[in-house]
Amino acid sequence: MRWSQWYIPTLKEAPGDAEVVSHKLMVRAGMIRKLTSGVYSWLPLGMKTLQKITQIVREEMNRAGAQEILMPAVQPADLWRESGRWAHYGKELLRFKDRHDRDYCYGPTHEEVVTDLVRGEVRSYRQLPLCLYQIQWKFRDEVRPRFGLMRGREFLMKDAYSFDRDREGADRSYDAMYEAYKRIFSRLGLQFRPVQADTGSIGGSSSHEFMVLAETGEDTIAYCKSCDWSANIEQAEIKASKPVSSSCPENEEVSTPGMHTIDEVSSFLKCPPEKMIKTLLYVADGKPVAALVRGDREVNEIKLKNFLHAETDVVLALPEQVEAWTGAAVGFAGPVGLSAAVRIVADNELLADTGYVAGANKTDTHLLNVDPRRDAPSSEYGDIRNITQNDVCPVCGGSVGMAKGIEVGHIFKLGTKYSKAMNAVFLDENGKEQVMIMGCYGIGVSRVVAACIEQNFDHDGILFPPQAAPFDVHVICLDPKDEAVLRKTEAVESYLLNSGLDPLIDDREERPGVKFKDADLIGIPMQIIIGGKGLSKGVIEVKNRKTGEKETLSAETFAPAFEEWKNRVRKSWKIR
Amino acid sequence: MRWSQWYIPTLKEAPGDAEVVSHKLMVRAGMIRKLTSGVYSWLPLGMKTLQKITQIVREEMNRAGAQEILMPAVQPADLWRESGRWAHYGKELLRFKDRHDRDYCYGPTHEEVVTDLVRGEVRSYRQLPLCLYQIQWKFRDEVRPRFGLMRGREFLMKDAYSFDRDREGADRSYDAMYEAYKRIFSRLGLQFRPVQADTGSIGGSSSHEFMVLAETGEDTIAYCKSCDWSANIEQAEIKASKPVSSSCPENEEVSTPGMHTIDEVSSFLKCPPEKMIKTLLYVADGKPVAALVRGDREVNEIKLKNFLHAETDVVLALPEQVEAWTGAAVGFAGPVGLSAAVRIVADNELLADTGYVAGANKTDTHLLNVDPRRDAPSSEYGDIRNITQNDVCPVCGGSVGMAKGIEVGHIFKLGTKYSKAMNAVFLDENGKEQVMIMGCYGIGVSRVVAACIEQNFDHDGILFPPQAAPFDVHVICLDPKDEAVLRKTEAVESYLLNSGLDPLIDDREERPGVKFKDADLIGIPMQIIIGGKGLSKGVIEVKNRKTGEKETLSAETFAPAFEEWKNRVRKSWKIR
Repeated sequence: MRWSQWYIPTLKEAPGDAEVVSHKLMVRAGMIRKLTSGVYSWLPLGMKTLQKITQIVREEMNRAGAQEILMPAVQPADLWRESGRWAHYGKELLRFKDRHDRDYCYGPTHEEVVTDLVRGEVRSYRQLPLCLYQIQWKFRDEVRPRFGLMRGREFLMKDAYSFDRDREGADRSYDAMYEAYKRIFSRLGLQFRPVQADTGSIGGSSSHEFMVLAETGEDTIAYCKSCDWSANIEQAEIKASKPVSSSCPENEEVSTPGMHTIDEVSSFLKCPPEKMIKTLLYVADGKPVAALVRGDREVNEIKLKNFLHAETDVVLALPEQVEAWTGAAVGFAGPVGLSAAVRIVADNELLADTGYVAGANKTDTHLLNVDPRRDAPSSEYGDIRNITQNDVCPVCGGSVGMAKGIEVGHIFKLGTKYSKAMNAVFLDENGKEQVMIMGCYGIGVSRVVAACIEQNFDHDGILFPPQAAPFDVHVICLDPKDEAVLRKTEAVESYLLNSGLDPLIDDREERPGVKFKDADLIGIPMQIIIGGKGLSKGVIEVKNRKTGEKETLSAETFAPAFEEWKNRVRKSWKIR
Repeated sequence: MRWSQWYIPTLKEAPGDAEVVSHKLMVRAGMIRKLTSGVYSWLPLGMKTLQKITQIVREEMNRAGAQEILMPAVQPADLWRESGRWAHYGKELLRFKDRHDRDYCYGPTHEEVVTDLVRGEVRSYRQLPLCLYQIQWKFRDEVRPRFGLMRGREFLMKDAYSFDRDREGADRSYDAMYEAYKRIFSRLGLQFRPVQADTGSIGGSSSHEFMVLAETGEDTIAYCKSCDWSANIEQAEIKASKPVSSSCPENEEVSTPGMHTIDEVSSFLKCPPEKMIKTLLYVADGKPVAALVRGDREVNEIKLKNFLHAETDVVLALPEQVEAWTGAAVGFAGPVGLSAAVRIVADNELLADTGYVAGANKTDTHLLNVDPRRDAPSSEYGDIRNITQNDVCPVCGGSVGMAKGIEVGHIFKLGTKYSKAMNAVFLDENGKEQVMIMGCYGIGVSRVVAACIEQNFDHDGILFPPQAAPFDVHVICLDPKDEAVLRKTEAVESYLLNSGLDPLIDDREERPGVKFKDADLIGIPMQIIIGGKGLSKGVIEVKNRKTGEKETLSAETFAPAFEEWKNRVRKSWKIR
């Protein structure tokens, strides 16, 4: 491809609204342009990258035995009413009416449509298992779209759905997708980690997220330094501590005027936060709940919601609610003597010690010597806090590390949530009707492009992993008007094409500085620089974009020298 | 691909709502399923066909120098307001609001978005010409979706947009697309014809439709039997006839009680229809217009609209309007003595004769001896009727033929309609600001799949042209439980794969009759039938799906015999 004939409008400056590096660089590299909030057009260079990544996803889906289909973006509301999600999905679901005033939505996901497609047509156990996938644009009306493709509204997704006869089959389907996902992200040259995750509003019994590791990631991952275990901190299980049995002196009130926060009380009373109880008041399905964790811990609202089996997300109570339930100003809530109307859920860890400081449910007052079991006997105990680096691995007891990641894939065991609601049944070997067991498996394909860049960039631009790069080689022709340089460039281009490589030839009449800057910006892994000066010395310069290392290869025996260098570049990416 | 592991749910019966053959066969062949009115899911076999056709379109677009991009489906209303189409597009434009109450639409086409993408970034004549294309799903909220994919609401379109410095450049861009379209439809093995067409609501100065010839087509094409000329009858130009100068006796009223139609009056007065004037009353932009054509001709409302430069479509007047304007019951309108408020537009052909019969604007009465020039001197003349087989070619005067076609592509010279409204300008060689000249070029990719079938089917099913078929060869394994048959099937499969062919292997445990019927239904061009009986005689049967011809090839020397037969099959499709 010749740059002079291609539309790659690079920019010196990123747009003002670009907050993250992938957004900045993709706009600057002429890969994408914003049409409207959270909605982007893909220019030729971006499109080529997207297609390259899509093709790897497609190949691995096919290899895993999934079959490609395509379901419509426009979905009738009736199916969503059947599954119950029309009422529950909220404002992220873009709803509209057609000219005949019928309700539709722009599909943010396709569980309903695929279940409808299969029910009635798949009737026998002999037609199962079945795994269907599509690569389709979706829309989620995010309240605050941002970070470019990372939290856009219109995005490309690969979504697969499996249908099985029984749990064992569904587990096999899930495992096959788990392995396919590992192959996909490995083939793309990404550092990633599959982690245990919450199933959220999709539902189901078990799920894994695939996280591309990047310091700019929005998600935090906990992992074991000894074994394979890792999980999103939203969901990371914490091993219950051993309860203590030491006794504790009687409660004692202490005045803490104007001390609202753990930090304030801790320094005022000279009591370390781990000897304090943090009491947060929530509303869960309309009812008051007090969540108790140690002063140095964070309540995990997803775990709390799951513990309570709440229908909707738990939300922090308003100050007036706190005051009504505790009889005190905000900042002085505690488990002891709390209104019986408030359900108390304490984190397991609180059982591991006694003699805590807690709010006294009385303005400007705390209680010393609190023993949760003795003083708040109605409390229920569970795992409701975020894991920390001081916790141990729930599997092997090893020490826990933390990393930042970008969620690019998510797989779910759905069980019968949709098949039961929508009556997707089959006849088993005995002619008995059974409900299909489903799984669903998503990859945010357009987000993968951004994640690639979040993981691989420097201050000059993108460092595309070779497997995900829009071109294999960037050939910079420094003097396109010089006949000898042009001829050599064409010879190199032919050689590359014949070797099965896809080159981008920068044949523009621009200053060398502009071309070098643009080459570093768009980040093709291998650069070949052909100029009159070099040729007069019989050499061609090459540059490994990732390491920045430059070398000069003989122009005469370019082919073998290039092959050798190419292998060194691949090694720097750890490609065998 | 093994049928037993693939999801191809064939049906014996077509659904009740399927009116056309492509719809019936695509549903029966398990290629598509309806989700909701005019919206379809693509099952694996349909998806494979769609991808095959898409790939040919993509290759020829790239070859023509167009660059692939992807623009969003969700488009902000503001751009449509800029072009003026938000107000004019009507109910086919699916409009909706996002959670912040901002107006959007689901793109039925992308002129606004692409113009917005280019303006501001393309500033210099050196960046032109530029041709961008995408292959993207669109939505048009048809009032009555029908005929399956032929008139669906959600459909796949390839749309390209060219930007040029001047008219000559725009003509070259147009011609390049014209040639690319010819290559695409030729490569797909389709019988087609490019025809002159009306530019409709897209606007612009000139356009061609690409018509796949099929008796079931909704469009009628006029073509010259001697030269290359052809046009949609909506637009086919008619050579003006030579005016006569013969004189005509005076008008004479004649009673025609209850005779409303041309046929009734013709037989009652024993006057041939070609000696009668048919007067139809229309409303054009709110004003009354009388359209006059010969009794045996049809008014062409598109030509009439264009002649009047009407903003909106012309519509037939209501009976009460006709009565008010003519003072007579419906059926007795005529040009003579018509209210001066009614503009009269007569077809050119009426000048070629005189002494017509026309309505007298008096109930139950006609006029004899009407000479339009003498009796309705305020009439304007123009080409406002449909062409017929009795007309002559407007280019060479040769005789005219008629054919039915399906519009699968449409190319337009847009001129500056969008670039002017949306200020897409550039600086020319002299630093002077100029407006870009645009063209737009569409192919209904999903409709091409249907058109392929409308042109190629028989009573057993689809006859896919080899270039468009989802698989190259259909291998029917009659006895998958017979070890020898299975081994031979696998050997044949390997051979085909190694020859670069894509085979579908029917390895299901079904009766031979079921497999034969399914093979004919899905219409892969080559069938190879492997069974125990044949193998015991040392033969393998092959069938050319198009001709129905069966042959037996030696199982021993299958490879060369198959190659020879394959060439015969290709010849039956006229593939070199």
